[in-house]
Amino acid sequence: MRCVPRDLVSIADLDAKEIEAILDHGDRFWPMGDEPIKKLASLRGRTVINLFFENSTRTRTSFELAAKRLSAEAINITSSGSSISKGETLIDTARNLMAMHPDAIVVRHKYGGAAEVIRGSVRPAVAIINAGDGQHEHPTQALLDAATIRRHKGNIDGLEVVIVGDIAHSRVARSNILCLAKLGARIRVCAPWTLLPRGIEDIGGELTRERVRVVTRLEDGLENADVVMMLRVQAERFEGEAPRFPNARELSRTFGLSERTLAYAKPDAIVMHPGPMNRGVEISPQVADGSRAVILQQVSWGVAIRMAVLERAVLGDVPPS
Amino acid sequence: MRCVPRDLVSIADLDAKEIEAILDHGDRFWPMGDEPIKKLASLRGRTVINLFFENSTRTRTSFELAAKRLSAEAINITSSGSSISKGETLIDTARNLMAMHPDAIVVRHKYGGAAEVIRGSVRPAVAIINAGDGQHEHPTQALLDAATIRRHKGNIDGLEVVIVGDIAHSRVARSNILCLAKLGARIRVCAPWTLLPRGIEDIGGELTRERVRVVTRLEDGLENADVVMMLRVQAERFEGEAPRFPNARELSRTFGLSERTLAYAKPDAIVMHPGPMNRGVEISPQVADGSRAVILQQVSWGVAIRMAVLERAVLGDVPPS
Amino acid sequence: MRCVPRDLVSIADLDAKEIEAILDHGDRFWPMGDEPIKKLASLRGRTVINLFFENSTRTRTSFELAAKRLSAEAINITSSGSSISKGETLIDTARNLMAMHPDAIVVRHKYGGAAEVIRGSVRPAVAIINAGDGQHEHPTQALLDAATIRRHKGNIDGLEVVIVGDIAHSRVARSNILCLAKLGARIRVCAPWTLLPRGIEDIGGELTRERVRVVTRLEDGLENADVVMMLRVQAERFEGEAPRFPNARELSRTFGLSERTLAYAKPDAIVMHPGPMNRGVEISPQVADGSRAVILQQVSWGVAIRMAVLERAVLGDVPPS
Repeated sequence: MRCVPRDLVSIADLDAKEIEAILDHGDRFWPMGDEPIKKLASLRGRTVINLFFENSTRTRTSFELAAKRLSAEAINITSSGSSISKGETLIDTARNLMAMHPDAIVVRHKYGGAAEVIRGSVRPAVAIINAGDGQHEHPTQALLDAATIRRHKGNIDGLEVVIVGDIAHSRVARSNILCLAKLGARIRVCAPWTLLPRGIEDIGGELTRERVRVVTRLEDGLENADVVMMLRVQAERFEGEAPRFPNARELSRTFGLSERTLAYAKPDAIVMHPGPMNRGVEISPQVADGSRAVILQQVSWGVAIRMAVLERAVLGDVPPS
Repeated sequence: MRCVPRDLVSIADLDAKEIEAILDHGDRFWPMGDEPIKKLASLRGRTVINLFFENSTRTRTSFELAAKRLSAEAINITSSGSSISKGETLIDTARNLMAMHPDAIVVRHKYGGAAEVIRGSVRPAVAIINAGDGQHEHPTQALLDAATIRRHKGNIDGLEVVIVGDIAHSRVARSNILCLAKLGARIRVCAPWTLLPRGIEDIGGELTRERVRVVTRLEDGLENADVVMMLRVQAERFEGEAPRFPNARELSRTFGLSERTLAYAKPDAIVMHPGPMNRGVEISPQVADGSRAVILQQVSWGVAIRMAVLERAVLGDVPPS
Repeated sequence: MRCVPRDLVSIADLDAKEIEAILDHGDRFWPMGDEPIKKLASLRGRTVINLFFENSTRTRTSFELAAKRLSAEAINITSSGSSISKGETLIDTARNLMAMHPDAIVVRHKYGGAAEVIRGSVRPAVAIINAGDGQHEHPTQALLDAATIRRHKGNIDGLEVVIVGDIAHSRVARSNILCLAKLGARIRVCAPWTLLPRGIEDIGGELTRERVRVVTRLEDGLENADVVMMLRVQAERFEGEAPRFPNARELSRTFGLSERTLAYAKPDAIVMHPGPMNRGVEISPQVADGSRAVILQQVSWGVAIRMAVLERAVLGDVPPS
């Protein structure tokens, strides 16, 4: 019996039960980090292609490690070495790779919707996993964040989570809003108006309209929060273009997380960041290195969750835990 | 007993029997594409170095997959990370790699003859495989093309094959002319005079003089053809230099394959392209996606043929089929 | 029982006994180069990350091969694809990688001390191996050089070794001086004054003060030498800046090794070079390809020594030979 592979293009496609199944699946790989021999045989003889049109050390490395620890062959393709520079369309690139019979293609692209385009281009035998597409979604980031929160808080239902920073340009924010809302959290998105996309509460329809609240002062965002998620200030966005308000320095001053501002959150709040961090910009070194930061655990969960996502993608089923 | 490895530098070095042995060998790997577990043990503990001085996603990926599916270790070296930028000679680079005891080196280089230079620099224990050298040869492309044709036409002997496009600068054309002539096809090369190298019929001596015909009108080229091979219009060749005739647009208009022009070929003709395609330039989207195109099957055959070439290269023998 | 991994940041950290243990360990891998199947299982399920902030084909390939031949998973990260370009600190990069639970991180960086910084940033469960940091050290180069000398001369104690070239900017020279002095050789460093760092004899304290001698004429350096180590003239250092004396051409004329100057050394002297060579600059082609050159054997020893270093790093112990 051959199973149909399961794509992971966006959190929007998953319901709470599917999300929880992936998190449970990831839990089974978590202890492996402490084992000397980190190798399972479940994807032996399978092929995972990492097709990265945008550079990303940590995400590519995380997926590559996840694939290899399941004994899959991992093939890396990065834009600098790709046919894209020869004018081939994304669809043709995808079909060409498909013709080499990989089991999964992990794709990162600067354009939102790229993963969906690829999913539509290849036959179902190849699973497509979105590793970040433009400002659309970054579903494995949201899943690893949920896994990290669950580990520390036991349950996500009923938690108060604040996401702080450049919401407008963040696929991490979008995937996290959808994922956390589905799992029952209440989410505040916290940014100056100019970095808040209109209608952000509506991205998940009624579900998010009920659960998402917009705040424009950091202190209001942090107050009584269980989880504080800081987004990266993408300084490159603020340079070279027409002057923006706020600029990176202003944003740091008014929306940066320090020990002083963190005091507004609950005493046992955890602090998260998808990385790479700008120390001293969106987060102070004291907080980044402090006891409430779980930033490196997010990275560790990244490998476990991606093992789960790859196994689910290729084997087409979540084995019972 | 240790076998002497078998290089593959050019089709010119092979006779028809050797070519057919490689094609038969590739046939044995073809069904693997549909298997869930795509892994054989024949090159376990062997090392294949992909030494790419020119970027090429599809060729590098195809060789890397082929090596890994045979359980070899695949090491990628691309020019951007290479010692070449430090002024080392090609011969010294080859000798250095040889000193690390690889079993095969797959080389792509912008200069014709580079693979031969490397073959002359290393001791016979290392097999050299040419993955495209300048305007000289691209032997595995010709072999995978022959395998694709054989699959669809049963036999190559007696077929009418037309190769259309920039013949003058195409290593694909040269390797295909030699390969197809050896296998008994009749070949028409079809291009405007300015893109036809003088003496192209002579590249294989008497054999090709008998079998190769030059035509300069697309309709004459296509008439009654069994196989239509389109070459990529390398638009980059037509830019930045002195104006050429024809330019890319003109070439597209007079030598592009459309449903209208394809009608000149036999009703069961197959359409091939080595990729990456310029849709709407040398080939219309309708033809590229039509029922007669076997372009993605060429890619699939690429992996199977490269598995055969690597196994032959390292194990020094073509196992009986 | 879990062993503590063993870093290799600098030769300065090792005593003669430890160096000899690594060399003995490497001896056990040396014969593997001639075996058809080059694969051991000792690091199966382990992960080695090659973190290269500087390009280096040969060193990266050598470490990658060494890891794979021990069955470890090897992950390559090069600066062009790294988060560094996004402003992350070196310490954060190291901690992030650590959170993915690798067993060893092999690091090359243009700044001296980078490997030490990384060692200080990660918990002891991850072994840090220095693959060259600025002008500080390149310990595996010194170890493979010592292994090559030992192979040819039987013993290093009492040998006369001359290191010729741009001593001031060479991490290879520094690591070799320390390593060879610890093993009992007498070392002459030979360069024009402007390329000799003040106090080079003191880098190993009393040990090197006793054993290192500075000479500024090539003939004095070579006289009666058992081993001649040529350094690469890094021509890029001599360009674009204020004119230096000597320039590359001058350096080649006065400190280049030719058959004429090599005659000053012992008749059975061996000639070494860490590569990549500038033929005709620091070394003549006749010498580079002559019977006394052991330059390619250095490359072969590189793989064997790096296998030893990785096994020691991950398994935390040098198995008895």
